[in-house]
Amino acid sequence: MNRIDQRTNRALRPVKIEPNVNPYAEGSAMCSFGNTRVLCTASLEKRVPPFLEGSGKGWVTAEYAMLPRATHTRTSRSHHKKGRAREISRLIGRSLRASVDLGRLDGYTANIDCDVMVADGGTRTASISGAYVALALALKSLGLEPDLQLAAISVGKVDGEILVDLCYEEDSKAEVDANLVLAPGGELVEVQATAEQGLYTPEELITMISLGAQAAREIFAAQNAAIKG
Amino acid sequence: MNRIDQRTNRALRPVKIEPNVNPYAEGSAMCSFGNTRVLCTASLEKRVPPFLEGSGKGWVTAEYAMLPRATHTRTSRSHHKKGRAREISRLIGRSLRASVDLGRLDGYTANIDCDVMVADGGTRTASISGAYVALALALKSLGLEPDLQLAAISVGKVDGEILVDLCYEEDSKAEVDANLVLAPGGELVEVQATAEQGLYTPEELITMISLGAQAAREIFAAQNAAIKG
Amino acid sequence: MNRIDQRTNRALRPVKIEPNVNPYAEGSAMCSFGNTRVLCTASLEKRVPPFLEGSGKGWVTAEYAMLPRATHTRTSRSHHKKGRAREISRLIGRSLRASVDLGRLDGYTANIDCDVMVADGGTRTASISGAYVALALALKSLGLEPDLQLAAISVGKVDGEILVDLCYEEDSKAEVDANLVLAPGGELVEVQATAEQGLYTPEELITMISLGAQAAREIFAAQNAAIKG
Amino acid sequence: MNRIDQRTNRALRPVKIEPNVNPYAEGSAMCSFGNTRVLCTASLEKRVPPFLEGSGKGWVTAEYAMLPRATHTRTSRSHHKKGRAREISRLIGRSLRASVDLGRLDGYTANIDCDVMVADGGTRTASISGAYVALALALKSLGLEPDLQLAAISVGKVDGEILVDLCYEEDSKAEVDANLVLAPGGELVEVQATAEQGLYTPEELITMISLGAQAAREIFAAQNAAIKG
Amino acid sequence: MNRIDQRTNRALRPVKIEPNVNPYAEGSAMCSFGNTRVLCTASLEKRVPPFLEGSGKGWVTAEYAMLPRATHTRTSRSHHKKGRAREISRLIGRSLRASVDLGRLDGYTANIDCDVMVADGGTRTASISGAYVALALALKSLGLEPDLQLAAISVGKVDGEILVDLCYEEDSKAEVDANLVLAPGGELVEVQATAEQGLYTPEELITMISLGAQAAREIFAAQNAAIKG
Amino acid sequence: MNRIDQRTNRALRPVKIEPNVNPYAEGSAMCSFGNTRVLCTASLEKRVPPFLEGSGKGWVTAEYAMLPRATHTRTSRSHHKKGRAREISRLIGRSLRASVDLGRLDGYTANIDCDVMVADGGTRTASISGAYVALALALKSLGLEPDLQLAAISVGKVDGEILVDLCYEEDSKAEVDANLVLAPGGELVEVQATAEQGLYTPEELITMISLGAQAAREIFAAQNAAIKG
Repeated sequence: MNRIDQRTNRALRPVKIEPNVNPYAEGSAMCSFGNTRVLCTASLEKRVPPFLEGSGKGWVTAEYAMLPRATHTRTSRSHHKKGRAREISRLIGRSLRASVDLGRLDGYTANIDCDVMVADGGTRTASISGAYVALALALKSLGLEPDLQLAAISVGKVDGEILVDLCYEEDSKAEVDANLVLAPGGELVEVQATAEQGLYTPEELITMISLGAQAAREIFAAQNAAIKG
Repeated sequence: MNRIDQRTNRALRPVKIEPNVNPYAEGSAMCSFGNTRVLCTASLEKRVPPFLEGSGKGWVTAEYAMLPRATHTRTSRSHHKKGRAREISRLIGRSLRASVDLGRLDGYTANIDCDVMVADGGTRTASISGAYVALALALKSLGLEPDLQLAAISVGKVDGEILVDLCYEEDSKAEVDANLVLAPGGELVEVQATAEQGLYTPEELITMISLGAQAAREIFAAQNAAIKG
Repeated sequence: MNRIDQRTNRALRPVKIEPNVNPYAEGSAMCSFGNTRVLCTASLEKRVPPFLEGSGKGWVTAEYAMLPRATHTRTSRSHHKKGRAREISRLIGRSLRASVDLGRLDGYTANIDCDVMVADGGTRTASISGAYVALALALKSLGLEPDLQLAAISVGKVDGEILVDLCYEEDSKAEVDANLVLAPGGELVEVQATAEQGLYTPEELITMISLGAQAAREIFAAQNAAIKG
Repeated sequence: MNRIDQRTNRALRPVKIEPNVNPYAEGSAMCSFGNTRVLCTASLEKRVPPFLEGSGKGWVTAEYAMLPRATHTRTSRSHHKKGRAREISRLIGRSLRASVDLGRLDGYTANIDCDVMVADGGTRTASISGAYVALALALKSLGLEPDLQLAAISVGKVDGEILVDLCYEEDSKAEVDANLVLAPGGELVEVQATAEQGLYTPEELITMISLGAQAAREIFAAQNAAIKG
Repeated sequence: MNRIDQRTNRALRPVKIEPNVNPYAEGSAMCSFGNTRVLCTASLEKRVPPFLEGSGKGWVTAEYAMLPRATHTRTSRSHHKKGRAREISRLIGRSLRASVDLGRLDGYTANIDCDVMVADGGTRTASISGAYVALALALKSLGLEPDLQLAAISVGKVDGEILVDLCYEEDSKAEVDANLVLAPGGELVEVQATAEQGLYTPEELITMISLGAQAAREIFAAQNAAIKG
Repeated sequence: MNRIDQRTNRALRPVKIEPNVNPYAEGSAMCSFGNTRVLCTASLEKRVPPFLEGSGKGWVTAEYAMLPRATHTRTSRSHHKKGRAREISRLIGRSLRASVDLGRLDGYTANIDCDVMVADGGTRTASISGAYVALALALKSLGLEPDLQLAAISVGKVDGEILVDLCYEEDSKAEVDANLVLAPGGELVEVQATAEQGLYTPEELITMISLGAQAAREIFAAQNAAIKG
């Protein structure tokens, strides 16, 4: 299959993660997958949510939002698509909580903000991959480091072929759209795989996971480079 | 493993789907998985959303909500947990749209409401499974029927074992929590699998899907019985 | 006058009050007046509102809501008719506070939820009559009982005749619409009587109250049966 | 009984209705019952609500609000007590719709605004009584007049005695609190009678209505004087 | 230039400030500039906002709102123009905080409410000028007085001429619209000067300030008369 | 006076305006004044607001917002400081409407979004200065250009001295804080000058305007360079 940008089916778009782009945040990173660009900041607060008070645990939470003109046509700041944003915020928070032993964060909340500057597909996977770096840098400011490295990647089925890291145009005609959050060894934290047209088989899901895990190595490397600075 | 209610790991709780429980709705069903009880109604409206006007297509959309005392302790009707409800509403709507060729619904919107009376785990899977029946009954009132039968089931890993159809107590200590929407042949429409503690392997995911597909046969049978009436 | 369902002018529709329909609530009842069906739960909370802290008193409050398809055509969950629901919520709470000496509830709030499953007229009177049972059952769990039994009933003037317990079709053409909350001896806690067309005389109001009080005996009996269980 | 301001039990506070207090509104009146002061405006709009389009009818609707410092201590403008205000708004609108044949208002909506400047009890009855004048003046600007004169009055039981037109201090210790909307002949449009402590008998209700109707003559006279201007 | 009401370019409309118009507020004044009428109340509360707790300082804050029929055509109470009202509220609060040493208000918040009864231009300047009186009267109830007298006035350029205290009709065709908050000696607390058409020069701004300061003497005198009572 | 970054009192911080930073927007610019960084996009829409339909005019409107971690400590995305953001949005929109003859924009709305990435003082002046460039580039895409060049600059009085382009630390202790929107010839579109402590004289205001106009030349040059690209 000829992809729009001549990539092979298994290839990521160019991945860039630039650390420390915000002078105030305890951790920050600008993460790009091709045109898609997300500003990720991690803000530490000396406070835990009420349900954790006295538990000996800290917390990690996330908010995802799009700038109005991140998209091809402008999207209003008001209620439109708030449901989608809340759902992605919950996914990011849940994923990042898997990367750190909350007992070591005792007394702190890490607030992750993922603000999409440009949306060309894969904004949630770029958000998680960049947010991991922002969180790792914030942890470093406390003398800590993550317990588990995590990245996210999208995989899909388009015209019957499995493609890695779909851009917006590919995504909008995909038959299956899957988002994976995974560790360097290929183990999984989250799989969300949706048939947009028709059905998919368990075997196809396994293929998608396998191709995603191979491509994610490049993201893990970019994360490590960004954190080392 | 000894489950709370002495079920085997692969067994569903008793599934009941009572059709036509609402005298006004075009389709309705009360769906129970053990204690969990969801009232599902399908309301047909002669109108399509603006983005489909003139497209020759109809629409299916869903709203999921909990009654305040569906839960062990009362939950306020206001904003609390609205993010979770929106996310589940989107899942239900997306799943049911996969079950019907929207071209045959031209001019109509089917509004699915899933109101949880009692929540003992698995409310989203009981919602989808019951909503399928409500939608099928509403389609029948138009002389139509679904194009694809769909049911949903939860599977999880608890204390290292794979269990089907988790109740609340099992769910709250699960290491992995997966929700599957699938067709009678075992093909998938949606997989959402989240590690709550640790990681899971692609092989474990396949086992979960396989056990879920086997158990779902009982749900498909209950749906068919309810629709035939 | 021939009523739709052949009742006499003074007759209630069949009244059913099924207790303990919710496994978690301290008290609950499903209350039906004909097709009208309301799920009532009473949730006890060990907490009083700020204005009662240290007063030696407890509190009873209520929320009334309709499921979207309780009505002939679906009603949106959003702001539509919220004013009416708030007004009925206030009426239910006020009525039930008259049934219990708040000093005996010290330290507790009883949250009454009345969720209308099917609305065929008289939803507020079915709510109050069922909520009384839910509250009595919740009080029983504390070793208490109500100080005053209360039921509610609607009475109206339709085509010049006084009718008891109006169904939706009768209600929508009534000249006068009255809701009464009363005690077994016929004394009143609340009268709300509205002329929808024309005026009514004090004498007509007395007739309505008298017929309502006679018919309410059947509701008091159903309440007592449900509470004894 | 000695009332705070030495009135007899059957006496109103001084009633004043000053017409045309707003230079822009089609009709307006400042209505005072003692210290209680409500600014009532009637704004005509050449438009009917969607549910009346093409029906040959006009509409009358009302909004009631309190200025923040109408009360002894300041009340926030935000959500606090919005339920009560919505309920009173609905009462005012319903009452005024009874005073005019909507068929003669075809094509118009009359928006009544009742803004409470000072609240010393009886704000809803002063609102309705003043709003009637504002509406009559607005109708006059169209060459119309009301079909039915209406006023509102509060009556209550305090320390076992029936008192007319309760001030705030009396109202806050009343055993029964009743609001009546009535016509010059003593016929009723609305009765709302609530036991705040204990119960009341149908006979007591009749006494309250009778005393209210006698005292209301003074309000009808003040309305007529204001409208003649 | 012939002004609508035959005033000279430098003349204010008749200014009236009636003190103590609200029986409950610690300070109050009805302030009129011609037809424009604003009810200003100052409510003292024994409480400071969280950011001032323990600081030894009190606070002054303000809310500005329009009654729905303050304007030529009725304005809805809902979100419309809320941005403008918030902006004016902030201006009033900021201005009045300049008139009193907050250290002397320790432990108190003065809540200023400016509710516009009639809007014929200059509502924000009438609000500030009247609110100063309400605040001064509230301070008097504590045995205090303001540290700095302040009044506000509007000046504009209409058809090339500088006019003082624009009415609505003049304001709606002004080329420049300026609002000044100033002290008796002509020193400034706030200048907001906006070109509605074209540009203005620094020299024109100085002329506007100079004319405004001269005219404001009349407002300062009216304030002093109202406070002395 | 020694400024934090050793600037002279009359010197701007380094001004950078990078054009075309967003691949989708019709016009865009990243505008920095020192650490302060604002992303400005101009989105053209073929539509005018209802009040301009059929008027032969187009429209320019603006929205200003801060990313949560633009500030030293994280600010919640919810209601906090929404009043301030609305006020600045209105200022930006009003200023930019002065730069273009709306008759030439007939049929179009230009939506300006100013999203603050980093806030170190002067965010509203950087927003206006950058938004001018975004708007000019969007106009260019229609074959148009602005009618009037505009820039904005802050000036203040700190420790008795007049300083140009205050950073956050200077701003937070300023006695006077002024924001100017002006044209290359020094004429003004908007002046907002607030005394934070004490008063200021008309002469001081003139000095502030004069120094601001001189420093703004550098901004006009940066704008021109960015637009020429």
